[in-house]
Amino acid sequence: MNEEQSSYVKEIVDGSIVTPIGFSAAGIHAGLRYAKKDLGAIISEVPANAAAVYTTSHFQAAPLKVTQASIQAEKLIQAVIVNSACANACTGEKGLQDAYKMRELMAEHLQIKKEYVAVSSTGVIGEYLKMDKIASGIQQISEGSTVSHADAFQEAILTTDTVMKKCCYTAKLGGVTVTMGGTSKGSGMIHPNMATMLAFITTDAKIDSDCLQSSLSKVIPTTFNQITVDGDTSTNDTVLVLANGMAENEAITAEHPDYPVFLELLAKTCESLAKQIAKDGEGATKLIEVEVSGSKTEEEARAIAKQIVGSNLVKTAVYGSDANWGRIITAIGQTNTDVNPASVDIAIGNIVMLKNSEPQAFSEDEAINYLNQDFIKITVDLHNGESKGKAWGCDLSYDYVKINASYRT
Amino acid sequence: MNEEQSSYVKEIVDGSIVTPIGFSAAGIHAGLRYAKKDLGAIISEVPANAAAVYTTSHFQAAPLKVTQASIQAEKLIQAVIVNSACANACTGEKGLQDAYKMRELMAEHLQIKKEYVAVSSTGVIGEYLKMDKIASGIQQISEGSTVSHADAFQEAILTTDTVMKKCCYTAKLGGVTVTMGGTSKGSGMIHPNMATMLAFITTDAKIDSDCLQSSLSKVIPTTFNQITVDGDTSTNDTVLVLANGMAENEAITAEHPDYPVFLELLAKTCESLAKQIAKDGEGATKLIEVEVSGSKTEEEARAIAKQIVGSNLVKTAVYGSDANWGRIITAIGQTNTDVNPASVDIAIGNIVMLKNSEPQAFSEDEAINYLNQDFIKITVDLHNGESKGKAWGCDLSYDYVKINASYRT
Repeated sequence: MNEEQSSYVKEIVDGSIVTPIGFSAAGIHAGLRYAKKDLGAIISEVPANAAAVYTTSHFQAAPLKVTQASIQAEKLIQAVIVNSACANACTGEKGLQDAYKMRELMAEHLQIKKEYVAVSSTGVIGEYLKMDKIASGIQQISEGSTVSHADAFQEAILTTDTVMKKCCYTAKLGGVTVTMGGTSKGSGMIHPNMATMLAFITTDAKIDSDCLQSSLSKVIPTTFNQITVDGDTSTNDTVLVLANGMAENEAITAEHPDYPVFLELLAKTCESLAKQIAKDGEGATKLIEVEVSGSKTEEEARAIAKQIVGSNLVKTAVYGSDANWGRIITAIGQTNTDVNPASVDIAIGNIVMLKNSEPQAFSEDEAINYLNQDFIKITVDLHNGESKGKAWGCDLSYDYVKINASYRT
Repeated sequence: MNEEQSSYVKEIVDGSIVTPIGFSAAGIHAGLRYAKKDLGAIISEVPANAAAVYTTSHFQAAPLKVTQASIQAEKLIQAVIVNSACANACTGEKGLQDAYKMRELMAEHLQIKKEYVAVSSTGVIGEYLKMDKIASGIQQISEGSTVSHADAFQEAILTTDTVMKKCCYTAKLGGVTVTMGGTSKGSGMIHPNMATMLAFITTDAKIDSDCLQSSLSKVIPTTFNQITVDGDTSTNDTVLVLANGMAENEAITAEHPDYPVFLELLAKTCESLAKQIAKDGEGATKLIEVEVSGSKTEEEARAIAKQIVGSNLVKTAVYGSDANWGRIITAIGQTNTDVNPASVDIAIGNIVMLKNSEPQAFSEDEAINYLNQDFIKITVDLHNGESKGKAWGCDLSYDYVKINASYRT
């Protein structure tokens, strides 16, 4: 995955959302669907400072409104309850009442304030939650901090995903070791705009809650907002970060000398989860990373990178291992950006195909060999400025069509 | 195709680009590809007033620059030479010279001014034209005005298209019958922005050339710009209209009482060609029409309609005959428009699925029966204003992936 290790932030390969001090998790089969686990929870020993970003869709789902209300109360969250199978989106007044009821049931089960509970749902839009199953499911939740507890949660939030997504990083803040774990679900309806699908991040770092929110807002544009699977922005996208402070470091604020370290810790966590979602896009066989440099602004570089990685024609060419760079040019061409059509370089892997906008001879065999791998890097240099940006996506396969022609039925 | 007949404009079912007085056509196999016809021409007996719109891509292909130069000279075009198999796009200085050479060869063949020749190319991006084949091909062009001549041209411009696109309409201007014929190619890389792929329209109407250009610019936003197959805007999109005046009607200007009739004639022609392209989108099995009403502005209605019809998730659901209206909501939700999330109606065919943003019970069997047809109408009422708009697209099938995973190789 080309993950570079920085000097400040280290990966904990076997870590997860329960690795930070004071976090536990659970996942069970509540019967919202046939067999798979479908109800999960993350719980902190103490109320944690919370920050979240949500979809910019006009149709924010009911649970997002409840989570927003919870965070607004005291900016503290102690537990998250999440179901899959049903998104509880476009369900009107009844859907909103159901989401509030779900919060209340979880608060009663844990004997905590209802405003300390965040609610999250993912699955089919326009269907009501089966509240009897949710209610009895919540009673069965019994959290713990083992690997299998984390796995149970990570499994419970999946829909068409084929693998669980998780990561864990550690860093020192003010001389104290803090840990951050994350998990997410994705696969379809992935074209985040502000936040994405569901992602949950836990950390034992102590950090001011306003600073936590601004840190999250700062890293989202270069991480979750830079992945796309199908160009469709979900109604339920949420990224939620819980910081319970149990590492006992000196509290991080924007002025703290180790604030950049915290930002990097959060950015690495978000980028890892985002890339795992892209790689597990519906029907995907390959992760595509596009890096654009030489643009006037970072925003333009990111916009171009996302346009390329979101193009159905690029995605199908990558699936077919066809070095059809004309489709990359097409994607760049239609962006509303400042591009000099005479100065563009394009490479797939290390194979240069266009230089100063002139086609270059290359070995088709070498290109096919490269494109047959499962990580594909596309590099574009616009020679039009000093900025750069990245985006991640996946190829478009027969299985994408298969999965989506029959998702609901 | 739900084509309504207006009182002013009548369809000529068997008509084509050679039906208007004074137009002839040809199509031959020049050897740019294995067997299919690949070089075509449209010729007018006299120089015709010409208007064109082109792709807004940063990377306009070489032939577009040559055609622009030709039209700029006297606003008159007498012949169009078109090849498929090679787009002559991103081919740098050599590509531009090739396109000028192609114009010159055609002008010599017909013994006309080179500025009266328009040049057009479609096919793979980033490869050079085989100029020896183009040169000998042009020598073989022998035009005529029979159905088979028109068909030969219509075939020569196709790439991954499975059917020829054509239409013909007639109307009376100042008491004189005029005729308009059109043909186009499409299938992939279809997400026009200003104009689309290749479309050629002939008419014997007499019309001022500035008025012709403004008429074309007026109808493009509601016709060609409202179709999408894959969200990718080509480098070669061109719509070219030739009006040779041989019907001898009183010249149409913006002040002429029959100007609205001419506009309708042109709009019907453009809409027919645009819908034929959408229906023949790569791998498509169904034509999808989306009509949005109740919006604040027509632009918003069109933007929402196009977002819905362009959504991979909507397209795969239609392919699988799955009435998954949550994906329609998702598409609406992510548009940058003024939407009241509490007042939306959605229907597929006549089956209402969402009313005032509340889910409605409906018969799944009835929905599947409707979705198994090859024309699918999706209707959205935002109840937020008085404007409306339409867009057209197609479903996303296994064959789309198959075609595009191996297009170039």
